[in-house]
Amino acid sequence: MEYSETAMRLHWDEVLLRALKEDVSWEDVSANAVVPEGARGRAELIAKQDGVIAGLPVFARVFTLLDGAARVETAVKDGDEVKRGEKLAVVEGDMRAILSGERTALNFLQRMSGIATYTRAVAKLLEGTGTKLLDTRKTTPTLRSFEKYAVRAGGGYNHRFNLSDGVLLKDNHIGAAGGVREAIARARAYAPLCDKIEIEVETLAQLDEALAAGADIVMLDNMDGETLKEAVARAKGRAELEISGNVSRENVKNYAALGVDYISCGALTHSAPALDVSLKNLRPI
Amino acid sequence: MEYSETAMRLHWDEVLLRALKEDVSWEDVSANAVVPEGARGRAELIAKQDGVIAGLPVFARVFTLLDGAARVETAVKDGDEVKRGEKLAVVEGDMRAILSGERTALNFLQRMSGIATYTRAVAKLLEGTGTKLLDTRKTTPTLRSFEKYAVRAGGGYNHRFNLSDGVLLKDNHIGAAGGVREAIARARAYAPLCDKIEIEVETLAQLDEALAAGADIVMLDNMDGETLKEAVARAKGRAELEISGNVSRENVKNYAALGVDYISCGALTHSAPALDVSLKNLRPI
Amino acid sequence: MEYSETAMRLHWDEVLLRALKEDVSWEDVSANAVVPEGARGRAELIAKQDGVIAGLPVFARVFTLLDGAARVETAVKDGDEVKRGEKLAVVEGDMRAILSGERTALNFLQRMSGIATYTRAVAKLLEGTGTKLLDTRKTTPTLRSFEKYAVRAGGGYNHRFNLSDGVLLKDNHIGAAGGVREAIARARAYAPLCDKIEIEVETLAQLDEALAAGADIVMLDNMDGETLKEAVARAKGRAELEISGNVSRENVKNYAALGVDYISCGALTHSAPALDVSLKNLRPI
Amino acid sequence: MEYSETAMRLHWDEVLLRALKEDVSWEDVSANAVVPEGARGRAELIAKQDGVIAGLPVFARVFTLLDGAARVETAVKDGDEVKRGEKLAVVEGDMRAILSGERTALNFLQRMSGIATYTRAVAKLLEGTGTKLLDTRKTTPTLRSFEKYAVRAGGGYNHRFNLSDGVLLKDNHIGAAGGVREAIARARAYAPLCDKIEIEVETLAQLDEALAAGADIVMLDNMDGETLKEAVARAKGRAELEISGNVSRENVKNYAALGVDYISCGALTHSAPALDVSLKNLRPI
Amino acid sequence: MEYSETAMRLHWDEVLLRALKEDVSWEDVSANAVVPEGARGRAELIAKQDGVIAGLPVFARVFTLLDGAARVETAVKDGDEVKRGEKLAVVEGDMRAILSGERTALNFLQRMSGIATYTRAVAKLLEGTGTKLLDTRKTTPTLRSFEKYAVRAGGGYNHRFNLSDGVLLKDNHIGAAGGVREAIARARAYAPLCDKIEIEVETLAQLDEALAAGADIVMLDNMDGETLKEAVARAKGRAELEISGNVSRENVKNYAALGVDYISCGALTHSAPALDVSLKNLRPI
Amino acid sequence: MEYSETAMRLHWDEVLLRALKEDVSWEDVSANAVVPEGARGRAELIAKQDGVIAGLPVFARVFTLLDGAARVETAVKDGDEVKRGEKLAVVEGDMRAILSGERTALNFLQRMSGIATYTRAVAKLLEGTGTKLLDTRKTTPTLRSFEKYAVRAGGGYNHRFNLSDGVLLKDNHIGAAGGVREAIARARAYAPLCDKIEIEVETLAQLDEALAAGADIVMLDNMDGETLKEAVARAKGRAELEISGNVSRENVKNYAALGVDYISCGALTHSAPALDVSLKNLRPI
Repeated sequence: MEYSETAMRLHWDEVLLRALKEDVSWEDVSANAVVPEGARGRAELIAKQDGVIAGLPVFARVFTLLDGAARVETAVKDGDEVKRGEKLAVVEGDMRAILSGERTALNFLQRMSGIATYTRAVAKLLEGTGTKLLDTRKTTPTLRSFEKYAVRAGGGYNHRFNLSDGVLLKDNHIGAAGGVREAIARARAYAPLCDKIEIEVETLAQLDEALAAGADIVMLDNMDGETLKEAVARAKGRAELEISGNVSRENVKNYAALGVDYISCGALTHSAPALDVSLKNLRPI
Repeated sequence: MEYSETAMRLHWDEVLLRALKEDVSWEDVSANAVVPEGARGRAELIAKQDGVIAGLPVFARVFTLLDGAARVETAVKDGDEVKRGEKLAVVEGDMRAILSGERTALNFLQRMSGIATYTRAVAKLLEGTGTKLLDTRKTTPTLRSFEKYAVRAGGGYNHRFNLSDGVLLKDNHIGAAGGVREAIARARAYAPLCDKIEIEVETLAQLDEALAAGADIVMLDNMDGETLKEAVARAKGRAELEISGNVSRENVKNYAALGVDYISCGALTHSAPALDVSLKNLRPI
Repeated sequence: MEYSETAMRLHWDEVLLRALKEDVSWEDVSANAVVPEGARGRAELIAKQDGVIAGLPVFARVFTLLDGAARVETAVKDGDEVKRGEKLAVVEGDMRAILSGERTALNFLQRMSGIATYTRAVAKLLEGTGTKLLDTRKTTPTLRSFEKYAVRAGGGYNHRFNLSDGVLLKDNHIGAAGGVREAIARARAYAPLCDKIEIEVETLAQLDEALAAGADIVMLDNMDGETLKEAVARAKGRAELEISGNVSRENVKNYAALGVDYISCGALTHSAPALDVSLKNLRPI
Repeated sequence: MEYSETAMRLHWDEVLLRALKEDVSWEDVSANAVVPEGARGRAELIAKQDGVIAGLPVFARVFTLLDGAARVETAVKDGDEVKRGEKLAVVEGDMRAILSGERTALNFLQRMSGIATYTRAVAKLLEGTGTKLLDTRKTTPTLRSFEKYAVRAGGGYNHRFNLSDGVLLKDNHIGAAGGVREAIARARAYAPLCDKIEIEVETLAQLDEALAAGADIVMLDNMDGETLKEAVARAKGRAELEISGNVSRENVKNYAALGVDYISCGALTHSAPALDVSLKNLRPI
Repeated sequence: MEYSETAMRLHWDEVLLRALKEDVSWEDVSANAVVPEGARGRAELIAKQDGVIAGLPVFARVFTLLDGAARVETAVKDGDEVKRGEKLAVVEGDMRAILSGERTALNFLQRMSGIATYTRAVAKLLEGTGTKLLDTRKTTPTLRSFEKYAVRAGGGYNHRFNLSDGVLLKDNHIGAAGGVREAIARARAYAPLCDKIEIEVETLAQLDEALAAGADIVMLDNMDGETLKEAVARAKGRAELEISGNVSRENVKNYAALGVDYISCGALTHSAPALDVSLKNLRPI
Repeated sequence: MEYSETAMRLHWDEVLLRALKEDVSWEDVSANAVVPEGARGRAELIAKQDGVIAGLPVFARVFTLLDGAARVETAVKDGDEVKRGEKLAVVEGDMRAILSGERTALNFLQRMSGIATYTRAVAKLLEGTGTKLLDTRKTTPTLRSFEKYAVRAGGGYNHRFNLSDGVLLKDNHIGAAGGVREAIARARAYAPLCDKIEIEVETLAQLDEALAAGADIVMLDNMDGETLKEAVARAKGRAELEISGNVSRENVKNYAALGVDYISCGALTHSAPALDVSLKNLRPI
């Protein structure tokens, strides 16, 4: 997904407010003790590491939620590569609001930028291969849309959002249905017409069965290199192929030359370290 | 914080439901297509990496929220070290509910266990030093209590929960107040009587001022080794000391021998990679 | 969608509670005035018209939400055809709860059954044609999942649930993109991999362009009978076809013989009259 | 009820947001794919059937909730009769917001206008009789205030809003109390002083008992024409009379000449077909 | 209003949870520090003042919300007069839950009992006069239903619940309408049929106008004793009369002999001191 | 706590909206009946008793929540002493909004001002003694922050906000831990580093044990005058002292001369009578 005001107003605002309430149960004791009511100030957002920035509209929105008159001017935009020491934005507004919102704003930004940074690194390893890097549902509970947005800012693509908007039949579903063919048939009969049917297979025999049953996408699970090559040859023009399972920055190159359509990587969202960003030099104005 | 039913009922249940709704906007198309209504099954929770487990009550609660009759039997408890391949729990219940809750339950567990694992690793480096390892407010927005719980399961201690339950005066507060002494005085006059006053200092001169003004805790920011030693000597018996700032698994040893009371480490919660856990072998019962 | 406990617990319970609060702002004055606290009773759910019943689990849940000990025994199940005068269920529980929940429970049931009844009537007109009857997004705001469930109970199929889980490019999208081909290309590049691309066309030329661009589904808008036949011929094996626009019980037969894959009908959800059902013979037990 | 900003801000805004979230779980894939961020446009609201319009402030509010800068200029006002093809309003704003809000805005408007149209038709049949047309509690769950507003826009009057703001004793209440007199006495003793006491009777004997017990309003249930005439004669000046039960556009004339105070009609809200309205000609500006 | 499970489930539970969350933002540090998880105990609820008890079901519900297995046995019931030192109830359950819920449970009980106690005292002064004691809308924001319940437990009666369920025309409404007659006419035309029309008057001339216009209830504001007597004489059999304005325990006797239908008293809910109740003798079981 | 926009936006707005919804379930029948839509007016806020005002920003916010264009000009500020008859503020805005918000706005203001007035009276009795007057957790459920704010406006100080932000070990905790020393040790080990440890003692022996164990604050419960003096002498310089238990306006002087640090008083929030304030002279503008 890309940024749109609609998502901010319908979904993100309410998460941001929840995050702010988590950090300010009733008041910011420190800020209220030392900063006089109504004082206004300016502070700078600084990158403290190289990386890819993502989440600037979220960062900015935290402050405008607390102070309708706050202004955030950004020097870069989501998806840009930033350098350690670079000034990314200037925040102006009520000093108490800046202090009370600082950590929440940074917590969103550092996480989203960490994901974008990790995604960019992996995506670069796939450049020129025609294979797209996908995220997964291994996201932080309740923050999935922020993280899928960050993946996209980093150069990745989004797999299905959740269990309601796409069909993915795994070993448990195949077992419950009694086989690949039957699982696909049931899903085709049940799913809304706009859903493609994706199925996970572990052997070439299962792949053949899936292709014969008309799967739209086949996820290849735990196959070795030779098998993967053969799978790609068999599926050519009949279904899209996705490789999944323990893909990371370290091993993605092994899969890059195979010519599959997609490689999905849970680590993008569950193990990307935060990007260090900081709000500095708060001064009265 | 430790686990208590009260937290689960008052706070966590509602986050878990929100997470489940995120993953199931209206229905789990795949599960509903292939699994007949009412079918019951059993699956196993398996560790796929060595680490420290945390979040088992959360993992279990996800399933009982979806199916009041679901049962989760655990073979280990939060804080235990687990080995790759170890069976951690067995889930029994409605098969659709197990499939629909699986990813949400694992997403909580893998994140909390990742934090506990990372914390344990750092805490071990401080063993025998008398210095306690602390978390920070650099947590995932809206999930702080889950993460502070995981830190504790890993062997760390909790710093203040948020801006309302503790005073920590940083450079911006000191600037706004006009100095260390004045900041502490204002905070003392304003804060509820049960709050200690903590202040961040960058120089020995500031430390002296803080001690003279009666700070309860002093956070030493960015000091070199010699200065830190001097700081510890000056503060002895007058205030507690905390070291903060870019502490990680890699560099914590540098601070271990100084004899400070606390070392806080944001990486525990913002950069711990997830622990790989998996729900396997779903079978009808 | 079909009924599952998961949907009830994650989504429907909260709508039912909202509906009950709408009808009982603070208390049911009439019931509390005349019925003593704790009195228990039994009442019968009676069909007062012929039709297809849908919503019985919702009807029952209203009473168990108000009285955990209430029991509802049903003589029929969703999707069954019922006759005027037929006894559909018996409710037993706290008499105040039965009186306070009665109208809310019936309001859900009469609406869902009305939709199922109307859908069944239209679906019968398509029997044997291979064409599936689809619902639309022209549903009652905030009650879409109840209505899509009712359509399915009536024998219809579900189109996409909402704007997030499927792509449907209409004239406004085509205009904004600058043409059919470009609109499809942008959607293909942007949408999650699990989404099929559907596009609405008004002419055979647009149809050709859509087929060439690889649309998965083409919606034929406002074409006359001859044009529709030609469209079916051209699309054969290349894309699925859907007819939409002012389809109703009165005119659906005109489209039945064309051999398209889908006919969608907004009237199923926006204009189906309620089915008359009543709760009678409340007696103490 | 009439329109007031207070109702919009306290109650309707939150329903509108819920409806928008139902249609946009995380993003509008189609709109975001083809419309560039920030593009602005204009579209027209067109009546596609003759009828009575109701819900224009709701229609407009949907767009301003998504885009604070959106503007909706209306050519008619709620309660006006409109003709097929008539332009009712112009919407200007962010094109993504217009596309994302279109269906939700129309779903409210078509339902409310359908109710107003049906109500107007029935109300016209009572013109000149002095009998007022009333709605009932047979409304769409959670949308009652929208529907009662639409009834009023169509020329009807509102019965009690819910179980908390009025007393209506039906056969079940009479049975529980042990008789008409006792039911009225209990209600009089229990209800807030501002509530009139209304009771439903099935025979003239019950009517006499109700009048003797001081009922403020008596609802006549299932009486034939002669009995109704006698009932009107007996109640003259002693209580208000309401006729209820299966009243519809088709049969209301039978009751028009009787001279009762009120006729209530559930069909106004549970079976009025939607009025066809459409948003056309979206163009960039 | 009287107690009913329906109100508890639909409305009070959610207020109780909100109150508990207010007191336990994330955990009860003291209880969790000293009480081992799972320990169970018993404590006693003791009256520390004479008074009328109200709110026992609320008190009990606080504990069962935190611990589904908690049990509260009560020795008295709402509306009973209790004596200092009397044991009112025994609570058994999880010790952490008892400690964490104690203050919230008592805060509800002491406030509701304070209101019941004050109400009983005033109501006794009206005994034998035929005049009913009414509450007002001068209640604690968001807790009105708890307080109206307590008034009734104390022997008072409930005036309208809020602005939606009753009509009361005050000087500002009369001014806006242009006179007593016009205000009543507009209200009669606008209000739902089940609402009586009440109007506030300051002179006998206004009273005459109100009676002529058919007001159902007239509130006499700020009249002296002689005027009140005359007002009672004029209104006899034509409308109910209510006296309002600065009525308190101290002065209510002045109005008792006049023979009006109602006297309303804001102090019942806005100025009743709390009744002292305490939870004592927590012991492990 | 002091007033800050952050608290209003994050916490109070939502309570105010809840209060308004309590008073206007769907519409204000009286106002909508007599006041034309869009009419604007002005009214005055008048003190009807001498006292200390608190809650003016809350009073004002009620009106701007209902009418974004409303303006409230205040002649005094929170904490000011006001006289009977004094004009405190002027409200201008939509007349329906003023009428619909009036009671809610006044209900907040009269309660908060009642608390401030009572607090000021008690605080004056402690002037010059160096002893601070504290509030308690005996507040109105869900309105604690409003009441703690009012205490501060009246000249009191805030004790801990809730069970999460401070440690206070009472007899039940001591019993559960097995003694004063053990309770303090457990709390010290468990609580976040920023929390002081407070413990309640009943004897001098317990006091000695608490001091030896390093309690930060000791609450003296139910000690007679001589014992209190001895306690003050023993604790000098070792811990802060607080007196608690049935302190009121009537008896606080008994404790004023003892030289303790704090006296806490539950009556400030649970038994302060409301201050009479009124909105008068609504006129069109």
